[in-house]
Amino acid sequence: MSKSTKLWGGRFSEGISDVAHRFSSSIALDGKLWREDIRGSIAHARMLGERSIITKEEASAIIAGLEDVALEIESGAFQFNDSMEDVHLAIEQRLTEKIGAVGGKLHTGRSRNDQIATDERLYLKRAIPVLFNNASEVIRELLIKAEEYIDAIMPGYTHLQRAQPVLLAHHLLAYVEMFARDRERLAGVLSRVDRSPLGAAAFAGTSYPIDREMTAKEIGFGTTLGNSIDAVSDRDYLIELASTCSIIMMHLSRMAEELILWSTREFGFVTMSDAVTTGSSIMPQKKNPDMAELIRGKVGRVYGALINLLTTMKGLPLAYNRDMQEDKQPMFDAIETTGDSLEMMALILRETRFNISKMESAASGELMATEIADYLVRAKGVPFREAHHITGKIVSFAEDAGKDLDQLTLNDYRVFSEHFEQDIFEYLDPRRSLAEKRSAGSSNPDMVTEAIRKMESGIKPIITAIEYNCS
Amino acid sequence: MSKSTKLWGGRFSEGISDVAHRFSSSIALDGKLWREDIRGSIAHARMLGERSIITKEEASAIIAGLEDVALEIESGAFQFNDSMEDVHLAIEQRLTEKIGAVGGKLHTGRSRNDQIATDERLYLKRAIPVLFNNASEVIRELLIKAEEYIDAIMPGYTHLQRAQPVLLAHHLLAYVEMFARDRERLAGVLSRVDRSPLGAAAFAGTSYPIDREMTAKEIGFGTTLGNSIDAVSDRDYLIELASTCSIIMMHLSRMAEELILWSTREFGFVTMSDAVTTGSSIMPQKKNPDMAELIRGKVGRVYGALINLLTTMKGLPLAYNRDMQEDKQPMFDAIETTGDSLEMMALILRETRFNISKMESAASGELMATEIADYLVRAKGVPFREAHHITGKIVSFAEDAGKDLDQLTLNDYRVFSEHFEQDIFEYLDPRRSLAEKRSAGSSNPDMVTEAIRKMESGIKPIITAIEYNCS
Amino acid sequence: MSKSTKLWGGRFSEGISDVAHRFSSSIALDGKLWREDIRGSIAHARMLGERSIITKEEASAIIAGLEDVALEIESGAFQFNDSMEDVHLAIEQRLTEKIGAVGGKLHTGRSRNDQIATDERLYLKRAIPVLFNNASEVIRELLIKAEEYIDAIMPGYTHLQRAQPVLLAHHLLAYVEMFARDRERLAGVLSRVDRSPLGAAAFAGTSYPIDREMTAKEIGFGTTLGNSIDAVSDRDYLIELASTCSIIMMHLSRMAEELILWSTREFGFVTMSDAVTTGSSIMPQKKNPDMAELIRGKVGRVYGALINLLTTMKGLPLAYNRDMQEDKQPMFDAIETTGDSLEMMALILRETRFNISKMESAASGELMATEIADYLVRAKGVPFREAHHITGKIVSFAEDAGKDLDQLTLNDYRVFSEHFEQDIFEYLDPRRSLAEKRSAGSSNPDMVTEAIRKMESGIKPIITAIEYNCS
Amino acid sequence: MSKSTKLWGGRFSEGISDVAHRFSSSIALDGKLWREDIRGSIAHARMLGERSIITKEEASAIIAGLEDVALEIESGAFQFNDSMEDVHLAIEQRLTEKIGAVGGKLHTGRSRNDQIATDERLYLKRAIPVLFNNASEVIRELLIKAEEYIDAIMPGYTHLQRAQPVLLAHHLLAYVEMFARDRERLAGVLSRVDRSPLGAAAFAGTSYPIDREMTAKEIGFGTTLGNSIDAVSDRDYLIELASTCSIIMMHLSRMAEELILWSTREFGFVTMSDAVTTGSSIMPQKKNPDMAELIRGKVGRVYGALINLLTTMKGLPLAYNRDMQEDKQPMFDAIETTGDSLEMMALILRETRFNISKMESAASGELMATEIADYLVRAKGVPFREAHHITGKIVSFAEDAGKDLDQLTLNDYRVFSEHFEQDIFEYLDPRRSLAEKRSAGSSNPDMVTEAIRKMESGIKPIITAIEYNCS
Repeated sequence: MSKSTKLWGGRFSEGISDVAHRFSSSIALDGKLWREDIRGSIAHARMLGERSIITKEEASAIIAGLEDVALEIESGAFQFNDSMEDVHLAIEQRLTEKIGAVGGKLHTGRSRNDQIATDERLYLKRAIPVLFNNASEVIRELLIKAEEYIDAIMPGYTHLQRAQPVLLAHHLLAYVEMFARDRERLAGVLSRVDRSPLGAAAFAGTSYPIDREMTAKEIGFGTTLGNSIDAVSDRDYLIELASTCSIIMMHLSRMAEELILWSTREFGFVTMSDAVTTGSSIMPQKKNPDMAELIRGKVGRVYGALINLLTTMKGLPLAYNRDMQEDKQPMFDAIETTGDSLEMMALILRETRFNISKMESAASGELMATEIADYLVRAKGVPFREAHHITGKIVSFAEDAGKDLDQLTLNDYRVFSEHFEQDIFEYLDPRRSLAEKRSAGSSNPDMVTEAIRKMESGIKPIITAIEYNCS
Repeated sequence: MSKSTKLWGGRFSEGISDVAHRFSSSIALDGKLWREDIRGSIAHARMLGERSIITKEEASAIIAGLEDVALEIESGAFQFNDSMEDVHLAIEQRLTEKIGAVGGKLHTGRSRNDQIATDERLYLKRAIPVLFNNASEVIRELLIKAEEYIDAIMPGYTHLQRAQPVLLAHHLLAYVEMFARDRERLAGVLSRVDRSPLGAAAFAGTSYPIDREMTAKEIGFGTTLGNSIDAVSDRDYLIELASTCSIIMMHLSRMAEELILWSTREFGFVTMSDAVTTGSSIMPQKKNPDMAELIRGKVGRVYGALINLLTTMKGLPLAYNRDMQEDKQPMFDAIETTGDSLEMMALILRETRFNISKMESAASGELMATEIADYLVRAKGVPFREAHHITGKIVSFAEDAGKDLDQLTLNDYRVFSEHFEQDIFEYLDPRRSLAEKRSAGSSNPDMVTEAIRKMESGIKPIITAIEYNCS
Repeated sequence: MSKSTKLWGGRFSEGISDVAHRFSSSIALDGKLWREDIRGSIAHARMLGERSIITKEEASAIIAGLEDVALEIESGAFQFNDSMEDVHLAIEQRLTEKIGAVGGKLHTGRSRNDQIATDERLYLKRAIPVLFNNASEVIRELLIKAEEYIDAIMPGYTHLQRAQPVLLAHHLLAYVEMFARDRERLAGVLSRVDRSPLGAAAFAGTSYPIDREMTAKEIGFGTTLGNSIDAVSDRDYLIELASTCSIIMMHLSRMAEELILWSTREFGFVTMSDAVTTGSSIMPQKKNPDMAELIRGKVGRVYGALINLLTTMKGLPLAYNRDMQEDKQPMFDAIETTGDSLEMMALILRETRFNISKMESAASGELMATEIADYLVRAKGVPFREAHHITGKIVSFAEDAGKDLDQLTLNDYRVFSEHFEQDIFEYLDPRRSLAEKRSAGSSNPDMVTEAIRKMESGIKPIITAIEYNCS
Repeated sequence: MSKSTKLWGGRFSEGISDVAHRFSSSIALDGKLWREDIRGSIAHARMLGERSIITKEEASAIIAGLEDVALEIESGAFQFNDSMEDVHLAIEQRLTEKIGAVGGKLHTGRSRNDQIATDERLYLKRAIPVLFNNASEVIRELLIKAEEYIDAIMPGYTHLQRAQPVLLAHHLLAYVEMFARDRERLAGVLSRVDRSPLGAAAFAGTSYPIDREMTAKEIGFGTTLGNSIDAVSDRDYLIELASTCSIIMMHLSRMAEELILWSTREFGFVTMSDAVTTGSSIMPQKKNPDMAELIRGKVGRVYGALINLLTTMKGLPLAYNRDMQEDKQPMFDAIETTGDSLEMMALILRETRFNISKMESAASGELMATEIADYLVRAKGVPFREAHHITGKIVSFAEDAGKDLDQLTLNDYRVFSEHFEQDIFEYLDPRRSLAEKRSAGSSNPDMVTEAIRKMESGIKPIITAIEYNCS
């Protein structure tokens, strides 16, 4: 069994076994964090120099070396490989190859424990604004569609049964509300991410006169974390983000479900373009809403990432435990899956045409029953429960007679209640029904138009990504 | 098969089957929401009167009737039973029994869809502040213990291996940070809960000239939800709360794990009183930390509630689907389990004595190795990596020799590096090591004392529960 | 703070606190296991007598006392209440009240640790056959419907797009396969449940000359567990059952989804009777498939129970930990929810009428495209990929022309390939297409009929519930 | 926006968008299944030739071409890239490039829907035996250790409190039982995996006279699936495997937890070699049980995979939906993580030395209390509950006196009960206590030795991997 040599190997007479090395190496995942790692190291080196923990010259040499390593990685000249243990040691080792033993001074006053927490938080400071903007993009497409189809009427559903007519725009705005809440939640997570753990060292702090405020500011953190043990043992931010991503995916799954339903032959409410549909290898007529299905399917991946993180953190004593290395896969998985799915949904919306005549013709008939009950209550003073009961009987009668509600005669109506008069037929027009809606937030066209206007002004990104140069 | 009759039964020739009634009745769970339901109904009735949708007299009769029903439920004179469908219909039916057909006017301009969302949000407006205060109570106990044991030293651990000495108070404060973040998250959820859905009716709004602002204000909501379809189809607030509860339980599970470890014969760091320990039915000597174990075990229940909610909401088309009735069990389960567990943990802390001499004697010896490396770096200018390597060799030597690091001679040390001088032995004192810690948030006693002071001033509840009278 | 006294309280000077008692009492859940507990105790007492660990007279007194307690519980004369700790102590205490100090001998050579594992396994020996039979009942209803509608054609779907015609019976038989696999899995779990832990005592076995085979046989277990530590620390059987229930619920959720879709106005494939549908409190025309929605919604509860159990058991050291008490809620929840949902689904099937003319008319038109491609391949020797491509062009042409595939002329067809001849039109008949299916397990009517026959003969319960008298 | 061209693109005027292509391409994951895909295709082609659906010459050309493609992939001459859609189309396209249009005939009478199900099941037919053997390897190492330390005594724990002495071997055998059950479950899953879906085509079967039995046999399946719709829509086998893997990981997490505890300074029961431990980048003395921690941490990944699959399959209508493509990541993740973790655990066991003197000295003192109670019951006829109570008082007395139970005098004992005589002191010897254990499966040394012997004979693999050549 050949053995790896490690930077921390002083007290070890033999190296770790190859199987153990493969089992424990995290470079394949945490290698993605090289930008964050180098950025944090540069700030740390500069601070060490400023606070005279190392000389200014040493600091400069380390910083220049790190910048070189960054270029090497960017260009592909230096590549991570499986023989390396993790991104921190890979970069430090490369640094030391380039600038000699002084590279070993970089790790003064810190530990991989605070370093990885810094890298992750920094990564999230980039990733969360991207998710935020992805969500904004979906909102934008929804608003564009809402405006484009501002006059379109569709059947609103409860229990997937036609219930009452609504504006298509009103339906789309319900999704805008969901993604707007998602943006609120993302902002909340970001506020808790934006705290620097750097300088907590292994977990107890350090006797070097480091300046945690300085590194935090240099890296771009809003503030520092208060307790060094908590700083390295906390992964709340990842769980909270995975939970927020799970809710986003849940919203997308509902929207995807509707788009899939609506593109069936049976509903026929939408047509998606060839850009977002696929065919069958066996059935030549098929035009499948695969992209929407994949979004719906990917919700499982993000729920899984959330459970992964929650399970891993359960019952861990303080401070750092190696179990926590397992946070990378669910972190990347949740973020990338959610970001891609939001991006895909925005594209689907752009590539979808609504068949408004089909929708409108579905928005009449038995859905007008509530209007009949309302007629009895509002125009005739019948108690609601009684009006509801009378209308139920009428619906049942119409169904048995194979007629629509507007095909019944006034006499038919009057069999069930003497309160009915000729004006009942005015109540059976969906557009009148919408215009009559008066409650705030309802499907009334004026209110919907106003809601779109307000939402458009709210779409401006309230978070801007931090500025350092990352792909 | 006998059949139930239902308030909505107008169009139905037969009633629902008994099996279906039992399968679908939610009264056993949503009956808990009767206070919220009545409170919302009173506000709705008053608004109907104010806006002349019903007469003032009708409104008064309904309100008086509802208050009577509340008294009946409170006193046990009226009890829910399995023949009822849900809390809304049970109360309305009882109201109508008491005040006659006018009771049927209460449901004008609303639906069970907005009603249940109102009830749930109102319930959360009570429950979240309770959780917040429960978390505060744990924080308070942690701070009391931190002050009481301000001088106690313990071994800090990583990988459950003794790592470096820390103050017990510093360790306890790490948990304060966690629960403080939990409080932040609870406040965030509450801000999204505090929006009234009432008046969204079935989902499309209503043609009655209702005033949603008025009912929101009367009930005590901060604002109203903007889109009526979203208002009845949203359950984000429950998922977000279940996620927040999951993180709280995860924190409690870590603390419980440590208390269980520390109360073993092997660690012996704490002794819990008889009030929070139990015995064995077979082994007379046992004194088991059952309460801590139960807290750790209950984390599964809350994770399960979170997955329950996420699963149920996946892929549901808008607006309301009956699947959503299944939100009650995980809602109550997450809230009650988390609240009870926080309360229990506060009690455990009160009933726990720390064995500081045992802790302190464990906080010496090989944990001082980092100090040796730091000695070489800070006092002698050896690059960190080299200092680390030298110290590793010394630790290995001491281990083979069966000696502690402070039992080695200066000559022993000098075998590994000529940099060692007599002052190395000063570095091996844990208290000196703590006093030397200089980084912000570290285990330095002055900093820890200051941190306690700051945290104490932050413990004041920032949320006060809403005022209406509920048990 | 008042204190509870406990049977195990010898070494405790104070009792447990009231808060802790409430937090830790399990009687509200494990009280359901009283039959199993008493049955296990009777077997244990008889064995103690047979092996002369207690006298025959003592054994008889204990057994008679336990039978009395059982009658008291059955009749309601003795009721559990919250002051009790768990079902084991509640029953033993009642026993001792009735027969005096000799009751204390019952616990000789056992512990609550092996007792609860025995109770749970015994409970599952009743519950699993019930689930098995519930699944069989759904299979039976599916087969009845398959036979009733043996001639009905429906569009088969992939991606929820009409794909190829199939027999409705063939579609229903797909679900039979799922529930048949569920029965296999239930049988597998039962085989691992059917092993007695009794006699493992606290975890190390006992020095009393007990006879584990004797108690196992008396209680009705197939065999005994081999290792006493494993016997009390194992909860695999619960997880495996929760996983099996999760798969069952997943199957039910798919079936529920289809029934909900099919009962929409848009599909219109099924009509459910009033017995399994409900109305709306606001929209008089609604007839909602609530029971199917609830089944779909309840899948979350069972997934949650699975995660609950998996989380609770993660990382527990051997042997027994109090965390494991938290297994009751998910156990009961998974079993009851799954059993009720299966029962409900059987009823829904009984109460559902298929609208075969609607289905059949949906099973023509563009779904016949695969037949056109097959025509080119089989009758004309065109390579499949080319045939697929040609047919795709034809479908596109028909769509643009607003025509169905059987409304195109031979000339239309020949524009795309000279291989087309008059016999192409025969290929466009769905019934011919089904009759032409030749592959095993396909939608060919003869094969489907044969499959029904085989499945009917396989429906006989292969598990019979154990015989002892339980409600 | 550039567009991809697809094999199924006949009816599509534009190609799929690049974003959609990236979002939907599965080649990065399903490319791992190329061996299975080619193996299935060869069997299919041979059958098509045998049944004269294509000519023998065509079949031979296709088979030779596929074998060539396999060699190209094996050697790296042909590599998958992101422009490809999935493994099936990539291989077929390459085949057609090599052998011309006849390659297009391969897909006759099948679909990607049955093809992917075949590939996955075939992959599991390789993977499950590997997991089975990995579990066997852990069992083997446990048995080796159990034999090596057959005389070693350790404290058995409940609630992590010392409870009663047991043999270390007995404790290790508890894990053998767990992994033996895992092997049973794996065998059960395999029996349900071993059924061929090939020939179900898209879902309805096919009109080509294919022979499903022939391909099943050729590929190596035990039997065929009975219903073509079920054959393509079933993913039970993946969920069942992920659940089985979750239970395995749960077992490993318990073992890992114990190894971590036992390697603390406080317990000191084990020493792991350098091959499976790692150091700290900052604390030179650290020797951390990282491999055990990683195993414990990875349990989250597998639980996550299980929830992923369950979530994705929830509520999907029949037959195939693109959501199901998302099954690959959790499938590979669950299998690889579990396999690696089992392999790692076997290595840890090989590299672990038990410190038996430390264990033995921990296995005396207060754990002997049960023996005192048993003495009173068995030697003196005191009812168990009373004996338990007396012993509790003695333990409390000894604790207050700061003495061990064997340091009390006979007079001390007689204060609590006159039944005590000189022979009580014999009962306080742990080895005597073990020798006295008489119940089957207990910690009695003879029984444990016999158990090891039996388990060794059961370790032979009952599953052998299928024979075809795969890496």
